[in-house]
Amino acid sequence: MYSFGEKIKFHLFGKSHGPCVGCILENVPAGVRISTDELKRDMDLRKPKDGIGTPRKEDDETEFISGIIDNVTDGSPILMIIKNKNIDSSKYAGTIPRPGHADLPAMIKWKDHDIRGGGQFSGRLTAPIVAAGSIAKQLLPSCVKTAAFTRSVGNVADDSVRNIDDAFASKKYATRACSDDLDNMMKKEIMNASAEGDSVGGIVECIVTGLPIGFGGIWFDSLDAVLAKAVFGIPAVKGVEFGKGFELTKMKGSESNDQYHHADNGIKALTNNMGGIVGGMSNGMPLVFRTAFKPTPSILKEQRSVDLSVMKNTTISTEGRHDPCIVPRAVAVVEAIAALVMADVAMCEGLI
Amino acid sequence: MYSFGEKIKFHLFGKSHGPCVGCILENVPAGVRISTDELKRDMDLRKPKDGIGTPRKEDDETEFISGIIDNVTDGSPILMIIKNKNIDSSKYAGTIPRPGHADLPAMIKWKDHDIRGGGQFSGRLTAPIVAAGSIAKQLLPSCVKTAAFTRSVGNVADDSVRNIDDAFASKKYATRACSDDLDNMMKKEIMNASAEGDSVGGIVECIVTGLPIGFGGIWFDSLDAVLAKAVFGIPAVKGVEFGKGFELTKMKGSESNDQYHHADNGIKALTNNMGGIVGGMSNGMPLVFRTAFKPTPSILKEQRSVDLSVMKNTTISTEGRHDPCIVPRAVAVVEAIAALVMADVAMCEGLI
Amino acid sequence: MYSFGEKIKFHLFGKSHGPCVGCILENVPAGVRISTDELKRDMDLRKPKDGIGTPRKEDDETEFISGIIDNVTDGSPILMIIKNKNIDSSKYAGTIPRPGHADLPAMIKWKDHDIRGGGQFSGRLTAPIVAAGSIAKQLLPSCVKTAAFTRSVGNVADDSVRNIDDAFASKKYATRACSDDLDNMMKKEIMNASAEGDSVGGIVECIVTGLPIGFGGIWFDSLDAVLAKAVFGIPAVKGVEFGKGFELTKMKGSESNDQYHHADNGIKALTNNMGGIVGGMSNGMPLVFRTAFKPTPSILKEQRSVDLSVMKNTTISTEGRHDPCIVPRAVAVVEAIAALVMADVAMCEGLI
Amino acid sequence: MYSFGEKIKFHLFGKSHGPCVGCILENVPAGVRISTDELKRDMDLRKPKDGIGTPRKEDDETEFISGIIDNVTDGSPILMIIKNKNIDSSKYAGTIPRPGHADLPAMIKWKDHDIRGGGQFSGRLTAPIVAAGSIAKQLLPSCVKTAAFTRSVGNVADDSVRNIDDAFASKKYATRACSDDLDNMMKKEIMNASAEGDSVGGIVECIVTGLPIGFGGIWFDSLDAVLAKAVFGIPAVKGVEFGKGFELTKMKGSESNDQYHHADNGIKALTNNMGGIVGGMSNGMPLVFRTAFKPTPSILKEQRSVDLSVMKNTTISTEGRHDPCIVPRAVAVVEAIAALVMADVAMCEGLI
Repeated sequence: MYSFGEKIKFHLFGKSHGPCVGCILENVPAGVRISTDELKRDMDLRKPKDGIGTPRKEDDETEFISGIIDNVTDGSPILMIIKNKNIDSSKYAGTIPRPGHADLPAMIKWKDHDIRGGGQFSGRLTAPIVAAGSIAKQLLPSCVKTAAFTRSVGNVADDSVRNIDDAFASKKYATRACSDDLDNMMKKEIMNASAEGDSVGGIVECIVTGLPIGFGGIWFDSLDAVLAKAVFGIPAVKGVEFGKGFELTKMKGSESNDQYHHADNGIKALTNNMGGIVGGMSNGMPLVFRTAFKPTPSILKEQRSVDLSVMKNTTISTEGRHDPCIVPRAVAVVEAIAALVMADVAMCEGLI
Repeated sequence: MYSFGEKIKFHLFGKSHGPCVGCILENVPAGVRISTDELKRDMDLRKPKDGIGTPRKEDDETEFISGIIDNVTDGSPILMIIKNKNIDSSKYAGTIPRPGHADLPAMIKWKDHDIRGGGQFSGRLTAPIVAAGSIAKQLLPSCVKTAAFTRSVGNVADDSVRNIDDAFASKKYATRACSDDLDNMMKKEIMNASAEGDSVGGIVECIVTGLPIGFGGIWFDSLDAVLAKAVFGIPAVKGVEFGKGFELTKMKGSESNDQYHHADNGIKALTNNMGGIVGGMSNGMPLVFRTAFKPTPSILKEQRSVDLSVMKNTTISTEGRHDPCIVPRAVAVVEAIAALVMADVAMCEGLI
Repeated sequence: MYSFGEKIKFHLFGKSHGPCVGCILENVPAGVRISTDELKRDMDLRKPKDGIGTPRKEDDETEFISGIIDNVTDGSPILMIIKNKNIDSSKYAGTIPRPGHADLPAMIKWKDHDIRGGGQFSGRLTAPIVAAGSIAKQLLPSCVKTAAFTRSVGNVADDSVRNIDDAFASKKYATRACSDDLDNMMKKEIMNASAEGDSVGGIVECIVTGLPIGFGGIWFDSLDAVLAKAVFGIPAVKGVEFGKGFELTKMKGSESNDQYHHADNGIKALTNNMGGIVGGMSNGMPLVFRTAFKPTPSILKEQRSVDLSVMKNTTISTEGRHDPCIVPRAVAVVEAIAALVMADVAMCEGLI
Repeated sequence: MYSFGEKIKFHLFGKSHGPCVGCILENVPAGVRISTDELKRDMDLRKPKDGIGTPRKEDDETEFISGIIDNVTDGSPILMIIKNKNIDSSKYAGTIPRPGHADLPAMIKWKDHDIRGGGQFSGRLTAPIVAAGSIAKQLLPSCVKTAAFTRSVGNVADDSVRNIDDAFASKKYATRACSDDLDNMMKKEIMNASAEGDSVGGIVECIVTGLPIGFGGIWFDSLDAVLAKAVFGIPAVKGVEFGKGFELTKMKGSESNDQYHHADNGIKALTNNMGGIVGGMSNGMPLVFRTAFKPTPSILKEQRSVDLSVMKNTTISTEGRHDPCIVPRAVAVVEAIAALVMADVAMCEGLI
């Protein structure tokens, strides 16, 4: 349900309008010094910025409740909590499922489901994912780097070839785009949607470098399968592709195959159409995957729905404090998920 | 590794050039009559047809070794075996990893890895997936229907809106396209690639109808996450998207949200951009997902690679009997995976 | 590691000398009202009483951090925390493994292992097990009752046939024995050991009534296997037996078999030598199992050990505040584990 | 259900009266040469011998169907099958549950359950366990030795201290006792029961040497918990204890604690009351555990039961070909389970 991982096990909990959100991270060895600066930087990257995100402001201070003493892991499960401070649930409807949200299935499947703020489906639960991901990054062998950036927002797409340095550099832009121009254009795209009481989606691209050849499993434990499962666990994700992904379907085998050559630093592929994975395992090239986020479902514009208490058609306009585009904030989440999966597989393979 | 499922557990085994491939399907209740006609029909749909697939001919006769007596399940694990009869490994190289295949990571990760025919990574292992999927279909409540078809081959794409009846009707075409015209165009696309000693990829779309609202789990057990993991387990899959998928990233929330209305037959969404899943659970609309298959990596055209035994650059041309396009055959595999996941979730939710 | 359960998942965390201990209980449905009186009563049953337990006094107040609002579950994972208030680690050695404890393997396996108070191996972590078990009891169908009692302490054994009412009645005695006499004798046994700076072990018996015929799984998921795994997870447990257990090995089949007869209230076994389980499933009779607890390893008496920092032989006397016998307190823990396992299986079988 | 193991995964299948029994063993590395002599010797140890077991004779020839070519593993899942040749189901009743068997819960839980020979609950399925265990033994580091012997049969108990050499030497006796005298006495005990149309149980003791200090997990993955779960999966097991087990409950802490000293060959415990496990991990001493087997439930003597088809009291006498005591044959099964669990943990810990 709320868990993934074979060795580095991650367990999520909390609700949008409960007292807190948080997680347990199991099996991190004792003696790992955690940089709270890095943690804070990662957490800040998930916060709304420059008016393109929700006006709901949260400190998002991560409290280590257990498993980390004086910023050093003690080998027991790490419990982290992030308090919910800024709760305003007055704007949320009670019996009318919001289009695009989990409301309808949740209300029909479970009596007593608390719809406010999305309940346990809320994107608010991605905060502890980012916190855990930050620890995972610090746990990974130093040669393994994980970074994501915004590939597109609405109709503004970044068509350049990007590498992990670009991804790291994107952090200075509010939209996590890879250049000033793209940042400006994406901001405008978001602001326009917001001005119309509407929202936009986009694509997050994530790159992991430094994985050894053979990293990952096979068939239903292949690296792409395991990663895709965790990524699809993030709310609003509607697609995942590796390397050139869907574009590969239009290529010839002679174009799509990454041919090999031998160089001073070992065997390398000449291209990276596969996104670093063949047969479920790393081929030594950077792992590259893209994640499609749908537009934020909560919008001010009036939409049709049904009042379940009286089973009558009605309309709904979600007036709460919502992000017109969650993509810039989702970059930190995708990055965290990737780091958690890499740390788990690395421990399974004896690399940690 | 070779397994998935929480209750209806599927375990795969076999190799391309070993004596057989097969699987175990665990926890199917006793007393289910299995139609071998349906099984044979599903297995036939995975076979190469009309010269657009591999010339390797296999009977692919599914033998029930245990768990099914006189075509009725006995409640114990079902063991199925499909013998490998037509093995010709003379054409396969030994120390040169083929581009696009699992060869490189497998040869580096495991000493003694047998590269012939892709070993345990071979698409040949999808035969027992189809057999198990056929049983899963017969196990599902009769209101649940699962069918897939070919959405595109190379640059030939089907842009029409399709429903499950189209998907069922596609079975009469060699390419699993939805119309005569598309079938012809796709065949031509495949033949052209084949004539050049090359290959093409494509997109398989799968539709599941009849799922009740609320079907599926949340977060990392959400229906899309669980399904994506199993689908990415299929060799050559490089992307998975639900509903409008990546296209959603270019839409506004007011366009992408599936609004609800109340009709005689209950609550319905007015559109199905989400592909039937919100919050990880079914919203009662047809489940729709698309799977991107890369071009077959084995091609006649010469490609660069490295001879690992001497660590020297060389070239390789794969002369074996390969499909110039695996998409038409993959339709049956995606359909089977979907049926297996649906049966597993259905049993977890008490619907079987 | 710190988890068990397929559907009602239990995740443990904390350390003896960290800030707290606690747990997550996953998948409890929304809308269950939790009696804090029952919770407190269960927690009190784990506390040392009447001078026969450790002088370390803890409030053991269970704080619901998430998942329970106003004493009603909200369907999201339940996070419970019990603070460690009364920590005195001055008496614990640093580099000398205490005989009978996890110290030696833990210190050799993990650098930086914190030996104080047993670290994450401490019996202190059984407090959240009891808290979660209390919720599990309240979640089970009302016909299912779970209760344990003390079958023996050292050489004082209760040889009477006992039923679940006896087990419930035992709660009024400090030793959880089933009669005044036994309580007195067991107290004396404990006091004598304590006076010598020594400790004693004993046997806890647990009874579960109201399980339907067929409750449980088969082979490696049989009810006894699943239960034994969770029970052996409790520190100090060295044996588990069902029904007449080891005594069965001396009986004839004609004596040990529980024969059936048909009565007004259905099929019943005439005896219960099997402890209610045949073939891994309930036969409708009370589930009965016994758990052997070794004597508390921490004793005042001097014992031989090795100082690992200098690899020299030495002696150690554990002066901390220890229970001379943990059995009376372990009764609540065994009961909790049983309730958690029953709730998990009940949910798997659709009974919750 | 039919599976255990985290990395070396074991999946069981088959029925007593189906065409075969068998198993899959997953994740065994490629290139391991399997001695079929050792396999045959292990399989032979499970066969009835000298008239003290069932007259049902089976070749029990293990066929490697997949994953082992020319007696060398190929890295893909190993599928082994043992055909059922000597099936005589004429003696088995259809609607009357046999006391002590899985019949009652199985017949009530599952319609269409096939009671003949115990169906999928049959001890016949322990044959593939032994086959897989033999492979596990050959996979383990050569310093790790696993051997079991018969500690008692009915009222004939071996009270001597035994080590692993005794356990190996026991194989020459039909009863797997450790001496001529004990073998004779146990045989007599079995023959006497048999002559009365009755059966007896007994205790199997298993020893594993060569485990490194720290081998195993903690809490619910502790070595004893994981091992107990697998052992309780064996039919007819009603108790498991480690080291002195239940006897420990009568000892003082000063007697039960295994004190340490430092010798030339490292740290050693002076005694082994704990059976080699503290805190869920190996302390470097031999792992020792005992398993209680109930008397064979199938006996010739008339017993009371209920005819479920008419819900009337009746009697039943099981006339099939049954072992009057399964303990001598169970020795091989316990040994196999232990080897499988050790191999799995060893792989998890990077020792294989």
